[in-house]
Amino acid sequence: MKATIERATLLKSLGHVQSVVERRNTIPILSNVLIEALPEGGIRLMATDLDLQILETIDAKVETAGTTTVSAHTLFEIARKLQEGSEVSLNAADGKMAIKASRSNFNLPTLPRDDFPIIAEGELPTKFELPAATLRQIIDKTRFAISTEETRYYLNGIFLHVVDDVMKAAATDGHRLARVTVARPDGAEGMPDIIIPRKCIGELRKLLDEVEGSVEISLSATKIRFVLGHAVLVSKLIDGTFPDYSRVIPTGNDKILKIDPKSFMQGVDRVATIASEKTRAVKMALDRDKITLSVTSPENGTAAEEVPGEYSATGFEIGFNAKYLMDILAQIEGDSVEVHLADAAAPTLLRENDKAAALYVLMPMRV
Amino acid sequence: MKATIERATLLKSLGHVQSVVERRNTIPILSNVLIEALPEGGIRLMATDLDLQILETIDAKVETAGTTTVSAHTLFEIARKLQEGSEVSLNAADGKMAIKASRSNFNLPTLPRDDFPIIAEGELPTKFELPAATLRQIIDKTRFAISTEETRYYLNGIFLHVVDDVMKAAATDGHRLARVTVARPDGAEGMPDIIIPRKCIGELRKLLDEVEGSVEISLSATKIRFVLGHAVLVSKLIDGTFPDYSRVIPTGNDKILKIDPKSFMQGVDRVATIASEKTRAVKMALDRDKITLSVTSPENGTAAEEVPGEYSATGFEIGFNAKYLMDILAQIEGDSVEVHLADAAAPTLLRENDKAAALYVLMPMRV
Repeated sequence: MKATIERATLLKSLGHVQSVVERRNTIPILSNVLIEALPEGGIRLMATDLDLQILETIDAKVETAGTTTVSAHTLFEIARKLQEGSEVSLNAADGKMAIKASRSNFNLPTLPRDDFPIIAEGELPTKFELPAATLRQIIDKTRFAISTEETRYYLNGIFLHVVDDVMKAAATDGHRLARVTVARPDGAEGMPDIIIPRKCIGELRKLLDEVEGSVEISLSATKIRFVLGHAVLVSKLIDGTFPDYSRVIPTGNDKILKIDPKSFMQGVDRVATIASEKTRAVKMALDRDKITLSVTSPENGTAAEEVPGEYSATGFEIGFNAKYLMDILAQIEGDSVEVHLADAAAPTLLRENDKAAALYVLMPMRV
Repeated sequence: MKATIERATLLKSLGHVQSVVERRNTIPILSNVLIEALPEGGIRLMATDLDLQILETIDAKVETAGTTTVSAHTLFEIARKLQEGSEVSLNAADGKMAIKASRSNFNLPTLPRDDFPIIAEGELPTKFELPAATLRQIIDKTRFAISTEETRYYLNGIFLHVVDDVMKAAATDGHRLARVTVARPDGAEGMPDIIIPRKCIGELRKLLDEVEGSVEISLSATKIRFVLGHAVLVSKLIDGTFPDYSRVIPTGNDKILKIDPKSFMQGVDRVATIASEKTRAVKMALDRDKITLSVTSPENGTAAEEVPGEYSATGFEIGFNAKYLMDILAQIEGDSVEVHLADAAAPTLLRENDKAAALYVLMPMRV
């Protein structure tokens, strides 16, 4: 293969592609990016970790079509350091790829394209489109709640499912739950319930920063494909059963607090300075139109702060993990959040209002 | 003690003070900052790690003079999170300090001031002033060469000494040497040769960012004091003998290369992409007015780049550690650097020109 590409184009695309490649690989070819110079012009870059695969097509002048694979991180580092505005020539033959740009010459060892593993997509019968903005919203408002506990692999992603005419996305780690509801896109009816893995969500979110318009999504019960502009992301889905999370969403919590999420969050952040690193527990005492946040630590001292809020039910005390509470409050965009409480041991529901697409459940802590 | 301070003033000063405090301390009081509300108004903050001590005086309204100590990092974190523009009241009594600002209340445990260790400065007979800009230059152009090897403790700092009418600052780790020469300031004649420890250099450099004008320096053979605006830094000096570094500065290197430091550095950086993490060795082949940089790695491939330069001596090859070479080139401000070479095994001298205050020596590597 022989082709010439603008350094900026190559760098941007390698930026996307190399981030799928794991830093440590026991199988050498998984460190490589597949580079395919197309007969009709243009270059296709592809990388995989066996669960997630990215493919991106970029402009290039192709002199000789062909395919090879080289170290993704090394090629990315080279592209990063090449002079701005330079043209990069790639020339692969005899187990080597020569890279030239102005006065720089590199020779990288290659591995044969036939060894490069491609994820077999199979049939992807469900096909629909989602606006990039909607997909960004779904991810931003739920991903913080994804579990990182590897033993609970079925919680290591975002659960996507369709109920009647709505599509729901949910994530939970057992301590907090985030759920976003959007209108069911055309074509999503009858789709299987799926769990999209965390790494796929992370790469997808990065690509979404650069995309306007819509994203094409195709899926089966085991695979999902996202088409975003020039990039195609294919991921295996998590083979597990997401718990019936709707059972933990409280419906009868009748103690309602309405409060400004910004000053609530800042108050929690301030008193949590005193909290011990381990528990990070903050106590919240509710009184008529007054919330008192406090933390007591045997080593660090005490902290207390009053935050005004609308509250008219019976006063009581409840504890929360400060970080979990702040994660949720950071997602509220308006200047008011509804906190639906029952008692000191019951799951608490948070949402902007009854029309909000997102809903959060937080388990209390003993304080 | 009881006093009121502007949050911004407190935060800025705690920023300086807390960075002297080590994160892990076996002696609890070393985690604390000493706070002294002065009868004449103003507050004095002080922190120490037993080798380095910082003292800063800030504006404050004092109601009751007095002194206490509280956790430096906790107080800093609280000040950081308090609302912008708020007034902070500090009130210490009965083993506790109450901190109030708008709706926030904190109570931190205190330790008695009498337990707080103060570095005894003793007599500091040598006294002189250096412009802040000169001191910044001395530090910036030498500190990268300070050794981090703890067994060679006498290299863990910047060596400052006076020879005739010049003051010289030098740092080396055995692989490279950096030396800056400035005019001897009035009062520095007859001063002892001293080694200023790396941590003191780091804290001093941070304070210098905010200082105009001159810095007052007082020293003995064992202690040094810097007065910078409202801050006073006192440090123990390294009790050791700095090697006679002048012997390693080559004087007879007659192969002279003149080259643009920017394109030289970028070329080294690019070819070093291929170098193995361990050695980072770059080969430099010198020919008439042409330098070829190259790296060969069994795993990663090869890289080569030509950089134009003025060179008319006999051609030969020499190897350098890419990072060490780049560290030096990054310090050259002009658009030309002189490289004085002898042979592939001899120390190489680098400097901007024969009038430059800074001079660098780099040991070659076998390649």
